[in-house]
Amino acid sequence: MGTSSENAAAGGRGTAVPKEVDYANYFCTYSFLYHQKEMLSDRVRMDAYFNAVFENKHHFKDKVVLDVGAGSGILAIWSAQAGAKKVYAVEATKMSEHARALVKSNNLEQVVEVIEGSVEDVTLPEKVDVIISEWMGYFLLRESMFDSVICARDRWLKPTGVMYPSHARMWMAPIRTGIVEQKLGDYQSSMGDWHNFVDETKAFYGVDMSTLAKPFAEEQRKYYLQTSLWSNLHPHQVIGTAGIVKEIDCLTATVADIEEVRSNFSLSITTENTKLCGFGGWFDVHFRGRSEDPAEHEIELTTAPSVDYCTHWGQQVFLVNPPTHVSEGDDLTVNFLMSRSKGNHRLMEVELGFEIQKHSGKLVAPFKNKYYIE
Amino acid sequence: MGTSSENAAAGGRGTAVPKEVDYANYFCTYSFLYHQKEMLSDRVRMDAYFNAVFENKHHFKDKVVLDVGAGSGILAIWSAQAGAKKVYAVEATKMSEHARALVKSNNLEQVVEVIEGSVEDVTLPEKVDVIISEWMGYFLLRESMFDSVICARDRWLKPTGVMYPSHARMWMAPIRTGIVEQKLGDYQSSMGDWHNFVDETKAFYGVDMSTLAKPFAEEQRKYYLQTSLWSNLHPHQVIGTAGIVKEIDCLTATVADIEEVRSNFSLSITTENTKLCGFGGWFDVHFRGRSEDPAEHEIELTTAPSVDYCTHWGQQVFLVNPPTHVSEGDDLTVNFLMSRSKGNHRLMEVELGFEIQKHSGKLVAPFKNKYYIE
Repeated sequence: MGTSSENAAAGGRGTAVPKEVDYANYFCTYSFLYHQKEMLSDRVRMDAYFNAVFENKHHFKDKVVLDVGAGSGILAIWSAQAGAKKVYAVEATKMSEHARALVKSNNLEQVVEVIEGSVEDVTLPEKVDVIISEWMGYFLLRESMFDSVICARDRWLKPTGVMYPSHARMWMAPIRTGIVEQKLGDYQSSMGDWHNFVDETKAFYGVDMSTLAKPFAEEQRKYYLQTSLWSNLHPHQVIGTAGIVKEIDCLTATVADIEEVRSNFSLSITTENTKLCGFGGWFDVHFRGRSEDPAEHEIELTTAPSVDYCTHWGQQVFLVNPPTHVSEGDDLTVNFLMSRSKGNHRLMEVELGFEIQKHSGKLVAPFKNKYYIE
Repeated sequence: MGTSSENAAAGGRGTAVPKEVDYANYFCTYSFLYHQKEMLSDRVRMDAYFNAVFENKHHFKDKVVLDVGAGSGILAIWSAQAGAKKVYAVEATKMSEHARALVKSNNLEQVVEVIEGSVEDVTLPEKVDVIISEWMGYFLLRESMFDSVICARDRWLKPTGVMYPSHARMWMAPIRTGIVEQKLGDYQSSMGDWHNFVDETKAFYGVDMSTLAKPFAEEQRKYYLQTSLWSNLHPHQVIGTAGIVKEIDCLTATVADIEEVRSNFSLSITTENTKLCGFGGWFDVHFRGRSEDPAEHEIELTTAPSVDYCTHWGQQVFLVNPPTHVSEGDDLTVNFLMSRSKGNHRLMEVELGFEIQKHSGKLVAPFKNKYYIE
């Protein structure tokens, strides 16, 4: 329960998070079968990993595999079925007991060893040829689970080893959405209710609460307008080109590379006469193997807005309040800075700004706002 | 961050809960103004405490008061307005900053001192004449905040001191509700979906998940049928007499008295030809002062089912599945055991059983079930 590295997750920049706090804030949700089932029912996710493994058996046949954050053990089981000689499935929560039962009932006990613990703490008997993990959170980095994959890689991956997935990218695009007006209405309604509350508290109870109006408004603004939203965007809502915010090579990335994501990128509006209501953020990952030992069949898992597909990740929406009129040909220069929340390294704070160069030449004031990925 | 008493809340029976874990699990919700406003908007709650203070000014005039878990500081402010010479308002979260602002804007800085910290840890310059606190959680003891009031009382209350409130009681009554059928339907639907999921996972992904059916069913059963529900019961739903589960004298109760609530009590059905679908649990508190220094006007705050009043506490509903046919004149012997959840001392586990002595003489099998107050 202390702060030594033996029983704390790294919160980045050397700050250790006590395991029990990390459990209460984060891990506990993964100990529920209902939550695992949600992820196991995500066909896009399942198909991508299934195909990545079974269309690249050469990476698994007679190899040693480490599954980081194994959950129910599905990736470990597939690795074994694809021919691995040994699979270590590391899972921090009691879900590991269910993973062990699943391994047994699927007759893979000889190959898959389930280990309950943090991958930062466990000791494996050998280094591994493949690290497979489904570590992606909303907008890729929410949950900061990739830190654990990096740690596992640095501790246990052979110099010739392969990462599954091998690459990851964060994307953003300008969008239109009716949600801004809805949230603005909710905020205003909440503030109207606040003023009634202040009047009544003064009248009935003799206490003047008006000094709290400002912090209450800030709290409500943060909640309604500055907290990114989960959404399943329709492609018609995307009103411009998408830009790459961040690219990650899973073989070489360090925690320092991802602790702070700072990016400037350009986008163009492709819809005539519309409103820029926000930005949608999503990610994709790729299974390419490594240059010396590439995948035979490269697989992509994308969470981009799609007519046919949706995933449990959806996209993250950052609202622009008030919406700005834009039109085809307008260019946006976007500056983006994402860092970990001080109180909880698994959540994020975002500073997002943009300038519009209107096709008409008209000048528009720059926009800048702070957001929270909760 | 260790386990010494200096920086851990007592979890009961000598187990210390690290402060950061307690914050992540419990305290953090109280740092939001929106949550404070909800409680401050509860007219029944506000009226009871307001009247308890202002109709008993003799307990406050020129006295020293301690407000345990002061939140926004409302009780501390009222105590000062009722004539206290000094009020210590102790609040563990950053809400204390708002309390301090409120005290200042209501011109009570000379009287009310806001102290940020746990009442287990803070040091006051003197003992106090009154401890006032609004510590009650759902069904009285959820949140286990009364432990902190007991600690404050043992550390800081003068031998002649008075507790506000002075007494508390837990009540239960048999009820009818359509919720049982709804939750049973939700559970069955969830299990139906599970079986589809198992079939598809086998067909598409070659993994047999059937071994997890039993733990999944247990998890879902616990979620849908064994977790107590917040409800605002109508008196018509109460189909029998209410029984006292527990009585607490706030001046003398110990943590051992409340860690485990064990009770046997009798109830009678008062409705003709109905279904026993569950039990509703609620509480009341009283402001009676102490025998040597009684209240001039005794005030009661009750959360019993009411046509005219509802509170943010509602009642806690424990479902009886399947519902049992009962009728006027049937007697119930109820046995009740509530203890703290091992993983989180602020949550509860309940073992509830009953036997029916039917008016007709017919024998009915006893019922027993485990519940979770989450």
